[in-house]
Amino acid sequence: MKQRPVAVLGSGSWGTALSVVLADNGHDVRLWGRSQDVVDDINLNRKNEKYLNEEIEIPEKVHASTDLSEVVTGVDTVIFVVPTKAVRPVCQEISQYIQSPVTFVHASKGVEPGSSLRISEMMAEELPQNIVEAIVALSGPSHAEEVSLRQPTTVTSSSNDQEAAKRVQDLFMNASFRVYTNSDMIGVELGGALKNIIALASGLTNGLGYGDNAKAALMTRGLAEISRLGTKMGANPLTFAGLSGLGDLIVTCTSVHSRNWRAGQLIGQGMSVDDVLEEMGMVVEGIRTTKAAKQLADQEKVEMPITSELYDVLFHDKTPEDAVQQLMVRVKKQEVEEPTFDTSYGQL
Amino acid sequence: MKQRPVAVLGSGSWGTALSVVLADNGHDVRLWGRSQDVVDDINLNRKNEKYLNEEIEIPEKVHASTDLSEVVTGVDTVIFVVPTKAVRPVCQEISQYIQSPVTFVHASKGVEPGSSLRISEMMAEELPQNIVEAIVALSGPSHAEEVSLRQPTTVTSSSNDQEAAKRVQDLFMNASFRVYTNSDMIGVELGGALKNIIALASGLTNGLGYGDNAKAALMTRGLAEISRLGTKMGANPLTFAGLSGLGDLIVTCTSVHSRNWRAGQLIGQGMSVDDVLEEMGMVVEGIRTTKAAKQLADQEKVEMPITSELYDVLFHDKTPEDAVQQLMVRVKKQEVEEPTFDTSYGQL
Repeated sequence: MKQRPVAVLGSGSWGTALSVVLADNGHDVRLWGRSQDVVDDINLNRKNEKYLNEEIEIPEKVHASTDLSEVVTGVDTVIFVVPTKAVRPVCQEISQYIQSPVTFVHASKGVEPGSSLRISEMMAEELPQNIVEAIVALSGPSHAEEVSLRQPTTVTSSSNDQEAAKRVQDLFMNASFRVYTNSDMIGVELGGALKNIIALASGLTNGLGYGDNAKAALMTRGLAEISRLGTKMGANPLTFAGLSGLGDLIVTCTSVHSRNWRAGQLIGQGMSVDDVLEEMGMVVEGIRTTKAAKQLADQEKVEMPITSELYDVLFHDKTPEDAVQQLMVRVKKQEVEEPTFDTSYGQL
Repeated sequence: MKQRPVAVLGSGSWGTALSVVLADNGHDVRLWGRSQDVVDDINLNRKNEKYLNEEIEIPEKVHASTDLSEVVTGVDTVIFVVPTKAVRPVCQEISQYIQSPVTFVHASKGVEPGSSLRISEMMAEELPQNIVEAIVALSGPSHAEEVSLRQPTTVTSSSNDQEAAKRVQDLFMNASFRVYTNSDMIGVELGGALKNIIALASGLTNGLGYGDNAKAALMTRGLAEISRLGTKMGANPLTFAGLSGLGDLIVTCTSVHSRNWRAGQLIGQGMSVDDVLEEMGMVVEGIRTTKAAKQLADQEKVEMPITSELYDVLFHDKTPEDAVQQLMVRVKKQEVEEPTFDTSYGQL
């Protein structure tokens, strides 16, 4: 039986890179984008020069389109690679065109401000139950450029429905793109979202002129505190030590290509938050996520010193110098507060 | 009561940097080095140009000497910052000069080949019991240059004797050098040693031309496997997620200054192991640690795929390309094998 085509929504760098992986695996891909220029570049030149290196050739099996109904009609699998704020409207629109149950995958990283909902929860709210076979999150340390160049990459496929997570694993897995499964969907989604807070803070210390020791400390203690919050929200703490937590944190904090890291760096160098947002000309998910995490931490009574200091810098005009100073002079402390293994999770 | 001077053994970059911290905190420091040139540079020019940036001025409170007996006589605290293979002979020599109980601290990272002993265990074997007040390990993400420049740094002080760990914390703690305590000495010592295996492997993938996605995956999965071995040897798995595990791993794998990372990079570029050792002209602790870890993994029946592939590259002429390929095509796998929290430690 011939497989049906796969729909990928979002023709930015990550949506295009995932389309390349699927095409390499023999799938016909329908790639939806809003921009006619990008769609034409893909279909006519086999390039996406706006978002990817010009050397990258997009396989013939990828067909781009600006017509959402054409892209999602008659497919088994729909992959969301759109910004967090586009998730709800795109769900609403495609609901009109889909009649039978479909596996929905998303590869976005964020938490909705206000509601504090994860992406899969937003999708579940918007999509009619009768067209949802399953919802799967795909997350992990993955620069799109490197994936397009077939450089070794590993990601995690996660769902409350293990069979669906495995189907998505099979869809993407190949010699250079290695896919693990993880049943802890809460942890996988929160890890990818909350790590952007630490990326911002890491960029900030770099902007202040601090070095690798400070960065390593911040990443280590930062992972501990987002793991603490995530655990409180029902995640398995081990997930934060995995690809979609630690792995993604490493890629984001050690690369100047990260939007969140770069925003933090500019703030550390003394630029105001508003000017940074204007200069970057795009959404910095980590800023909204910091606000959401601070709310959650207060509500759940979870200690998050880095998030808290960053929040004061972003929203209450605290200087970055004062924030870092505050973090360094906190009372002397045991690194692992509880020596017993099973009760001390997240107590770093 | 006037405090006694502190003895620091080893005038390389890290021994000198730790002496600077102690002097900043008001302690008189006696720094032992083998090289008369280095000792003279410190005493006469307040510099250690062989091992540290020439801009770094060494405080007057640091007095260097090549005379081990002079350095350790009448002190309460002796800090070892010597290569792993020098630990036993130096212990033997100073045992002659010390009469009353002393707190011994070490800041070295390795596992003894053959015996598989940690540094503190080697010290406990060599030092007469009646002169040992306590043994403490000091470890964490800390480039010596940055510490000398008073850039923010965090480390862990660990001992089976919590009071001793706290004394060492008090000795070093200041506004830019933040010291945590951790009672899991096995984990702190093994984390610092085993992370060099992953640094070698990380350098190797870089030498092969792979990017940040591969590095992040390798670090994540690498931390999981050294944590698995450490846990089997009695460490608290949380320690590996802390400063002396993850933190140190980040600093070592994301800096070209790391000797182990650099050695891996050269091997990845096609240089033979012997040529690398000759070119670098110094001990690469990670190579010996890989051998020790491979032995331990076989003995304890712990799965360590990265260590195992690296071992074959280092000791059985496997090509780096084949090793990385092997790692990528392993069977599809769940990231967290056991969904329950308290039994799945180290099962990443």
